[in-house]
Amino acid sequence: MTDLTQLTRKHDRGSRLRGRLDELLDEALVGTLSSVLDGRPWAIPTFFARDGDSVILHGSTGAGMLRHLAAGAPVVFSVFALDALVVAHTAFDSSANYRSATIRGTVEVLDGAAADRAMRALTEHLIPGRTSEVPANTGKELAATIAMVLPIESDNWLFKSRTGSSGPPEEPTEAWAGVVPLHTVAAEPVVDEWVPDERPMPQSVRRMLEATDPG
Amino acid sequence: MTDLTQLTRKHDRGSRLRGRLDELLDEALVGTLSSVLDGRPWAIPTFFARDGDSVILHGSTGAGMLRHLAAGAPVVFSVFALDALVVAHTAFDSSANYRSATIRGTVEVLDGAAADRAMRALTEHLIPGRTSEVPANTGKELAATIAMVLPIESDNWLFKSRTGSSGPPEEPTEAWAGVVPLHTVAAEPVVDEWVPDERPMPQSVRRMLEATDPG
Repeated sequence: MTDLTQLTRKHDRGSRLRGRLDELLDEALVGTLSSVLDGRPWAIPTFFARDGDSVILHGSTGAGMLRHLAAGAPVVFSVFALDALVVAHTAFDSSANYRSATIRGTVEVLDGAAADRAMRALTEHLIPGRTSEVPANTGKELAATIAMVLPIESDNWLFKSRTGSSGPPEEPTEAWAGVVPLHTVAAEPVVDEWVPDERPMPQSVRRMLEATDPG
Repeated sequence: MTDLTQLTRKHDRGSRLRGRLDELLDEALVGTLSSVLDGRPWAIPTFFARDGDSVILHGSTGAGMLRHLAAGAPVVFSVFALDALVVAHTAFDSSANYRSATIRGTVEVLDGAAADRAMRALTEHLIPGRTSEVPANTGKELAATIAMVLPIESDNWLFKSRTGSSGPPEEPTEAWAGVVPLHTVAAEPVVDEWVPDERPMPQSVRRMLEATDPG
């Protein structure tokens, strides 16, 4: 079974390949932002987006923890994708295929055009294509939000993954073994009640459904 | 868009309902364990299982961070499930429906029968039914692993969620709006090469495929 150890100690699963980091960041919708507050661990799952060498995060202007982060508190942002269950011939050898990344640093608060661009990137990451279907964020909307960036540098991140099966048994077994791929799929949308029946589903949502069509 | 703020400040999304916490913990396969090491944040995605009032975690006997945790370092364990994308009539109002939980405390190391039971629970959480299809963990296997427990108490956890649509627009709009449910599905397994063709797929894997059958 994949565990803490395999993430921290099995160096054959480590990788410094930036391309795979970017691929994971572009695919995952949610990460966990961890920091330290008064000596205690603090963690929150949050949406994010990658924009080049930046991980974009955001929050409301009223949130106290964000001020702590903006003041330079050290953070670690972690992202995980579960790709498959590895069903082995023993319980102990059962595992999972995954991709995992951590990025360390401190966040910087964005403003002006950079904040606007960051907010667009966040919406585009969650719902690709949506920003061209709806009006741009208003000044009032942007003022209600703090956009932040965690830089991706040459040495502040780590990417790890596990692939493949559990390997053949050392002794004969009657057990089955295999790898069960897992996928996230989008189901048929529930249209908001106020939307007229004849209004077409937007391209952004249509593409989301097509991308996950099993056929 | 759902963000840090909504998780920490919007009390209408908070809940102290233990049943929903348990449901989330029983459904999610991966959580993020965060702690503090030398004043810096530390975080790692990890598999886990709930066993009654316990969150079970595990790692290898060789991992240094686990000794730090076992010595009483404060931790926060966070779990997140992304249930749907909320496509609103504006980018700003776009959001996601989710369930989120955090549990704080310190971990305790298990041994003997409790460790054995914990390891079984971990395998059962990842692949329900599997422990009755394969031999029990051997003493050697158990000795290579540290099983730990983070207690769920009356006041050391928080559960939050968002449900529903983005709500009607304040002004007339041409935009579409709706909620796109997301599901994790299991695909057809890749059987290990050493497994004879005639060996049947086990019930545990069969149930996993049936549970995610879109039909």
